[in-house]
Amino acid sequence: MGEFELIARYFTRPTPQAVLGVGDDCALLQPADGMQLAISADMLVAGRHFFADVDPRTLGHKALAVNLSDLAACGARPLAFTLALALPTADAAWLEPFAQGLLALADAHGCELVGGDTTQGPLTICITVFGEVPAAAARRPGQPGTQALLRSGARAGDDLYVSGTLGDARLALEVLQGKLSLPEAVFTPARQRLEQPTPRVALGLALRGIASAAADVSDGLLGDLGHILTRSGVGATVDTSLAMPLLASHAHYTGAAGQFEQDIGTARALQCVLSGGDDYELVFTAPPGQRAAVQAAGTASATPVTRIGQIDATPGLRLVDARGAPVTGSFAAFDHFA
Amino acid sequence: MGEFELIARYFTRPTPQAVLGVGDDCALLQPADGMQLAISADMLVAGRHFFADVDPRTLGHKALAVNLSDLAACGARPLAFTLALALPTADAAWLEPFAQGLLALADAHGCELVGGDTTQGPLTICITVFGEVPAAAARRPGQPGTQALLRSGARAGDDLYVSGTLGDARLALEVLQGKLSLPEAVFTPARQRLEQPTPRVALGLALRGIASAAADVSDGLLGDLGHILTRSGVGATVDTSLAMPLLASHAHYTGAAGQFEQDIGTARALQCVLSGGDDYELVFTAPPGQRAAVQAAGTASATPVTRIGQIDATPGLRLVDARGAPVTGSFAAFDHFA
Repeated sequence: MGEFELIARYFTRPTPQAVLGVGDDCALLQPADGMQLAISADMLVAGRHFFADVDPRTLGHKALAVNLSDLAACGARPLAFTLALALPTADAAWLEPFAQGLLALADAHGCELVGGDTTQGPLTICITVFGEVPAAAARRPGQPGTQALLRSGARAGDDLYVSGTLGDARLALEVLQGKLSLPEAVFTPARQRLEQPTPRVALGLALRGIASAAADVSDGLLGDLGHILTRSGVGATVDTSLAMPLLASHAHYTGAAGQFEQDIGTARALQCVLSGGDDYELVFTAPPGQRAAVQAAGTASATPVTRIGQIDATPGLRLVDARGAPVTGSFAAFDHFA
Repeated sequence: MGEFELIARYFTRPTPQAVLGVGDDCALLQPADGMQLAISADMLVAGRHFFADVDPRTLGHKALAVNLSDLAACGARPLAFTLALALPTADAAWLEPFAQGLLALADAHGCELVGGDTTQGPLTICITVFGEVPAAAARRPGQPGTQALLRSGARAGDDLYVSGTLGDARLALEVLQGKLSLPEAVFTPARQRLEQPTPRVALGLALRGIASAAADVSDGLLGDLGHILTRSGVGATVDTSLAMPLLASHAHYTGAAGQFEQDIGTARALQCVLSGGDDYELVFTAPPGQRAAVQAAGTASATPVTRIGQIDATPGLRLVDARGAPVTGSFAAFDHFA
């Protein structure tokens, strides 16, 4: 199977929204008047971001999900994406399920595959995704405004929230790496979180005009929160007593604390929740006056939201327990070159 | 050097045109009212598209040039791009010149680096580029029109043109592969064509409203012309007697035909011109009534254009000599999985 047959067979589809899809030198998108295009690119490398023998269907899902998660963090509505794919061989048994997983998620979000590239090489997936957000009045002269959720909007006194659950993807990764053993009933849903994350697109859209800042949690909660703090010039206090309930796997052990300690352990659980990575949840801030609106956004998007702390004027990140006493520990974010 | 320091040091720059550049979950672009966004993505893999030890400065140039060439083929004005980069190590001695080569070409075209991704992995470069073209009145109900040059617009009776020169990049590749030996005076400019191609952006813009169809020549003239023919439902006749003058290296041998045959040979030269690849010229069509306008577009953009044949109603590609007699030969286009 040659390059052009491969593209025609697996990656050429109708594009009712785009002016022009796959098959020319460029794709053409026409944003509606007054809309801005939100753009994000992610590259996934075999052996680094996924196991080379992972189910190609879940890989197709995840490759797009991590990009949709960036749109979610900006409150952008998905429109389209390009796919650049390096493959060792043009293998139909791999391409068919990969395309199915990819395009099923794309269809669920009305996100059209409009172009890309395929080549022979070490298995690498690069997706660039496009969404739209309304423009807004300029805040400063010469600087167009936007209704996108940005990392830079957090203000002292804002509440700090996270969506969904955290840390289970990392637990599953540690099982697959042979560092941990978990009962099947705990591992199976955790593995689902690792391999088929749910981008929080509906929540991101619902938070437009409510949240003051947002980021997606891809490299670990504290690391990604750190980006908000740096860009906003603020600090934060996080209540770590909420960490255990945020770990979905923890619910399995209700009433069996001894077994939880034996299987996972509090220290590992805290590490996974605070800096595990691969969660694809949203960490976001909102003024206290928006508490009801935040909960309503969570309900409307069928996404749990948990208030985990607050934004402070003092720079830095402070971890505290339920009584406000400091918690110490090293919770470095994932670094792709560390 | 970690991922974030790497991005901050080499790839974070002011973006006066974009609403938001590097540093958030998404970049934000706001096309002017009535403009469409032209989008193209290319992935370059070490060992497949370039030698791993190639000068990183020229690699940075080429990685963007091949994408700008796609915008040129659509007649789109460059706006911005994203860069996703997998690197074996975060090596400043490589990143510094790579970024310089990349950003020098970007600056020359007013094309802003607005986002991307960096990760550890086999050296792979994925650039997605964005340009703008004016919309146009819809040609069919429900199908927005465009002023972009498309592959699908060629009509029987149109003239067939190619820009610049062809085949020299392939000659240089064959020297680097040890298949051929050339005098330094011939090899040096040919290598420049291979490693630092010039995207024909100005010509593409000048051809808007004049050319009926266009494609960029990346996989070889006949292969890329084939895409125009397929998408337009037409055929073409190409005068191969023009091939020798199209090879820039041929000019070196003026008055020394014997030496040309010894160094390169007519058969190899023809192969390089017709299907060498890596040329990044434009192949395009225009009605005969536009001949003066085509030449004026070439002059205005300081880009030579050569009429090499014509579009026929009969499907297929016919090669002829100066007297119109058929020329036979196998000139397969480059296939990334062949």
